[in-house]
Formats: sequence, C-alpha cells, structure tokens
Amino acid sequence: MKRPMRPYERDPARIYAQSFETVRREARLERFPPGMDRLAMRVIHACGMVEVADRLAFSPGAYEAGRAALAAGAPVICDCEMVAAGIIRGLLPAGNEVLVTLNEPGVAERAAEIGNTRSAAAVELWRERIEGAVVAIGNAPTALFHLLELLDEGWPRPALILGFPVGFVGAAEAKAELAANPRGCDFVALRGRRGGSAMAAAAVNALAAPLPGEMQ
Amino acid sequence: MKRPMRPYERDPARIYAQSFETVRREARLERFPPGMDRLAMRVIHACGMVEVADRLAFSPGAYEAGRAALAAGAPVICDCEMVAAGIIRGLLPAGNEVLVTLNEPGVAERAAEIGNTRSAAAVELWRERIEGAVVAIGNAPTALFHLLELLDEGWPRPALILGFPVGFVGAAEAKAELAANPRGCDFVALRGRRGGSAMAAAAVNALAAPLPGEMQ
Repeated sequence: MKRPMRPYERDPARIYAQSFETVRREARLERFPPGMDRLAMRVIHACGMVEVADRLAFSPGAYEAGRAALAAGAPVICDCEMVAAGIIRGLLPAGNEVLVTLNEPGVAERAAEIGNTRSAAAVELWRERIEGAVVAIGNAPTALFHLLELLDEGWPRPALILGFPVGFVGAAEAKAELAANPRGCDFVALRGRRGGSAMAAAAVNALAAPLPGEMQ
Repeated sequence: MKRPMRPYERDPARIYAQSFETVRREARLERFPPGMDRLAMRVIHACGMVEVADRLAFSPGAYEAGRAALAAGAPVICDCEMVAAGIIRGLLPAGNEVLVTLNEPGVAERAAEIGNTRSAAAVELWRERIEGAVVAIGNAPTALFHLLELLDEGWPRPALILGFPVGFVGAAEAKAELAANPRGCDFVALRGRRGGSAMAAAAVNALAAPLPGEMQ
C-alpha cells in the first residue's frame, strides 16, 4: 500500500507569515534598531539559522545609509553571480543596476599580476562605480580584504558594505577587519565563518523592502 | 597614524588547500563512502559549517548515480537561479544543460491554479526533462514536496535528487519525506532547517569534480 505523503503548507503568504513568526519567536532581535531588525530577519530567513542574529555586527547608520543609497539610484556591486541572482530586482526602488565584474575580460590576468585571487582582481574594476554604492560580498574573503586595501589607498567610499564572505580561510578575519575599522563606510557583517550569497542578497533585499509585503 | 591591515592569504591554490585541510581536520567524515566524502566536503566548504556533515542523509548509490548521470549528459534541473549561478559550468563533463523554469511564462498562473507556490508550479515544467536528470533544490521546500507528489503520480525518475531547501516552514519536513521514502531515486539531503543554493550547487560541482583540482 502506498503511504500517503505528509501534508505541507502551500500558500506563499502563509509560508512567509509563519517563517517570520518563527524568526521573531526564536531570534534575539532586541538589540537591533528599526530597519536593522528587518535586515537581520531577512538574513535569518535566508539561512534557516536564528542564532546568526547574535553574530551580526553593524554600524549605527548602516540600514539608513543603504536604504538612502538605493533610493538615490546607487548601484549594487556584488562579488559573484550568486549574490546578483538572489537580489529581487522588482524590489529595487530606482531600477538600480546590479553589477558583477568577476567574469569580465582581463580579470584572470590582473589576478596573476597582483598576486591575488580573481575575486580580488575583480574588485579593481569597481573603481568608477564604488562611490556611494551598496557593496554586497557573499563569497570571497579576498574581495573584502582587497576592497579594504583599496579604501586605504584612497578610493572613494561606498555608502554601505554588506560583508558576508564565507569559509575557513580569511572569512572571519576579513569581517573582523571590516568591523574593527570600517574606513568611514557604513557596514553590516556576519562575524565568523558563516556567510554566503543568500545572506548577502537577503541583506540587499531588506534595504529595498524591509520584509516581504512591507513595501517602502 | 594609519593602522596597517592584517595580512591575509591571497593565493587561490593555498586558500583551497587550507580550506579543505580544515574541513578534513574538523568534520566527521568517517561514515561517508568514497565520493560522498568529497560531496560532503564541498557542501561544508560552501557554508563554513563543519557540523553539517552530521546531518547529511544519502542513499548508498547517490554519488555514483549523480556522477554517471552527468557523464551521460543528463541535465541539471534547479529550483532557482541562485543554484544555477553556483554551478561551475566548466566542470560539467558533457556540456550538460542547467535548467531553471521558475521564471518561465505561465508559472504564476499555474501556481494559482494548483494552489501552490511558484516554485512548486515551476516543477511541473520539468516533466519532459526529468528522466535520468540531476535535480538540485536549494531554496523552496514546496518544490521538493511537489516533485515527490509528482513522482507518486507516476512521473519518470530523476537519477538523483539533491535536497537542500532551507528555512522554517517545510524545509526539514520535505527533506525528511525525501529521506524516508526516496521513491526509487537516489538522493542526498541535509536534514533540518539549514540548506541553500550554495550547498545545492556545491553538491552538483562535487559530482563533476570531487574536489578542486581532482578532475575526473
């Protein structure tokens, strides 16, 4: 006899509502100012881990800076295609461009020249677009490290750096460096090894619409 | 005085080597057969969490089934664009097609018709391509649930289902359903709430090349 499949929730509105109810019930959100609480909730929703709320570092004005930048038409600059794929274009308030330079011609050669990764070399192509931009790093620690180096060399400042690189080599360190000395940029960073494109994209989506259904 | 930035590893080969050394040192990999150990390592590498090894369920032949399917030219069918964006095309052994139907015309209408999400409705468009395919679900529990329903209705079998939907509503349940009754398909599933596109894509990449540098 065929065993019937267990029932499941199929209604998108109820799925969202139940998801965010769970996040509110289980996550420690008290310390976040308005806006940042929504960003934290979206990040949690993207990864299924309520405890990442406890590891989220941010500058006091991060949420407003990102929101204002997007409203003013700033581009969103991502370190990889997966982050770009996770950004809900329809939410962006000004048809904002979403930029990824990782696969541009010359990036591999530039990486060899500077003795760094392709992800780091790709950052150098952000030069003309970085001022006032929202930067979303969801993969490569070296992209975040190299961006910070370029800011130290005098690059113009992005409005906000969303630091979510992931992994075992350099991710925790790059995010600690960002949080310790954000170089005059607002920032959000998930401390430690965890991170990823889905969280970075969720943070961008939160700047555009705090929660699903909460349009600006 | 400007504080110098902390040093960081810039060499891609050393970054990979150190990353996978850490995974080998910290993760419990003993229970995995050859091939699956590599898949587990890639999944861990994608999320920065060694402990996900302990929650990875799989059928005994899963790795070989996926590898053989890709070698035979099977398509990789993904539930969202983020999974597709994470698949390293150059690794795929037969120029395999990577398919996402979520944004096809008619999906929203079909979702309303069947009273389910867009992600679930998009699965219905897999019908002609599903036989022998590698399915990679990295986002929507309802996509996995609906696929299992369609298999119960008699759909042809994919070669392998990579079950990595994420979140608080239905993700743990859909993966438990897959693991309890895989319906004649090989499968890999990360039990619990955690999952995501990066892990699903990493699992596909592991079928194509077990670890970076380990080409088939």
